[in-house]
Amino acid sequence: MFQLQAAGRAVRAMAEWAKQLAGIKGVVLDISGVLYDGGGEGGGVPIPGSIEAVEKIKVSGLKLRFCTNETQATRGKFVAKLQRLGFNILVNEVTAPAPAACRILKERNLRPHLLIHDDLVPEFDQLDKANPNCVVIGDAADNFSYKNLNEAFRFLIGLENPILISLGRGRYYKETDGLKLDVGVYMKALEYACDVQAEVVGKPAKMFFQSALAEMEVEPQQAIMIGDDIVNDVGGAQQCGMRALQVRTGKYRPCDEQHPEVKADGYVNNLAEAVDIIVKQLHK
Amino acid sequence: MFQLQAAGRAVRAMAEWAKQLAGIKGVVLDISGVLYDGGGEGGGVPIPGSIEAVEKIKVSGLKLRFCTNETQATRGKFVAKLQRLGFNILVNEVTAPAPAACRILKERNLRPHLLIHDDLVPEFDQLDKANPNCVVIGDAADNFSYKNLNEAFRFLIGLENPILISLGRGRYYKETDGLKLDVGVYMKALEYACDVQAEVVGKPAKMFFQSALAEMEVEPQQAIMIGDDIVNDVGGAQQCGMRALQVRTGKYRPCDEQHPEVKADGYVNNLAEAVDIIVKQLHK
Repeated sequence: MFQLQAAGRAVRAMAEWAKQLAGIKGVVLDISGVLYDGGGEGGGVPIPGSIEAVEKIKVSGLKLRFCTNETQATRGKFVAKLQRLGFNILVNEVTAPAPAACRILKERNLRPHLLIHDDLVPEFDQLDKANPNCVVIGDAADNFSYKNLNEAFRFLIGLENPILISLGRGRYYKETDGLKLDVGVYMKALEYACDVQAEVVGKPAKMFFQSALAEMEVEPQQAIMIGDDIVNDVGGAQQCGMRALQVRTGKYRPCDEQHPEVKADGYVNNLAEAVDIIVKQLHK
Repeated sequence: MFQLQAAGRAVRAMAEWAKQLAGIKGVVLDISGVLYDGGGEGGGVPIPGSIEAVEKIKVSGLKLRFCTNETQATRGKFVAKLQRLGFNILVNEVTAPAPAACRILKERNLRPHLLIHDDLVPEFDQLDKANPNCVVIGDAADNFSYKNLNEAFRFLIGLENPILISLGRGRYYKETDGLKLDVGVYMKALEYACDVQAEVVGKPAKMFFQSALAEMEVEPQQAIMIGDDIVNDVGGAQQCGMRALQVRTGKYRPCDEQHPEVKADGYVNNLAEAVDIIVKQLHK
């Protein structure tokens, strides 16, 4: 009886969320934890139904953009991996922190000292890196040695106007062999060491979502974000004026639905369920 | 003319500071940057006049305690180094974070996972470290690898009640080959990763100064701290009710004298000058 009532409430809640989909013209998808799971050396596994869900958006007439905080590989290498997993995805459909940071660095004549993953280095090939006047950190993983963090610190504290650019502000992520510290943790370390505030490029930064929307030529109120991170995906997109759904895959935890600060416009079991509902509403 | 006026002001300021020394019964000395400079593999060099200044306090009748945040070696090894440099100093005259942390761990039945310098490990020999229920970090230097920080993070986030004990909260220190990141930076990293607040054992923690005073059997208002760190030495001691002088050696920077939050009771060129004035006042 209790289960029936709960199920009834769930259906009603879902229906209500679906009613608010009027005017949606574009979908923004997080990648890790929404399209695929795992990561690590092996490369991960698609989340059931996600390959078909991406396809369904593409044939629906909705605009589509992928928006990731991935900084352990170049965008090209990352997309190639997703293609191998079976996804219909192209490099120019992906908004990622490193290319966004490159644009900012060029605009402001900044020459970065890089503390990033080896596989991300080619993304910065075209930039002048001699005599650095800022520090850029990404998810450097094993490159976060004491020696390397100390080197970045010395560059930063030696600058008259210390500029720290962080490719994301995540705390940790899950890989097949367990939890891993993310770039935000080392961003906080350098912020404290030098008494500076980092500029974040990546979710949840407003500018990052805005550049994804600009690529789609869609207004915030016409777009819906689907992600597994209640703060960086859902909260970030909402701050920007978009609607946002949280999927119950990837790093989702049940307590996210009672988050003290962020409430998603809807919670769905996975990407396939979200896309089914969105596309159905489109044809009403 | 301007120089003469400035000199006059300096003398007046010094005189004023010296007048407030009534009732002083004990002296608490920071070690690195006050007694000796440098560090690194070589071991460092005594600051001119400091060896004699320590001797002068000892024969003056004033009580004396050394109070350090050093966590790169056991207290025994650290004191042996200072003795080799020529200082009259004994292990039981030194208040250091590791022995203080050991007392706390025993009192609270805590079993630590340690992220510390190899040379500090023997200090924790007597403690049960199986099945850890807290994380203790010290100035681990090269041991602050991604692997080790990640391991400490996993222990901490896996605890039902995550307890993080940090042996100090310093940002960085100076060695012969340049600036080095200190334990506080990694404390901030773990605090952010796990959304916890570390318990700091070491300066500027009130309890740490209080244990130094208890060892001397002296009240806070009867004691004067002499250190090179405006926040951790001077600010910490003042918070505890002590008077505090900053020496212009070690990590001192001229801008410290305009620090927005901490104002020392006096600024002196070095330990020798401070001790001269204190001992002179004693005999008035």
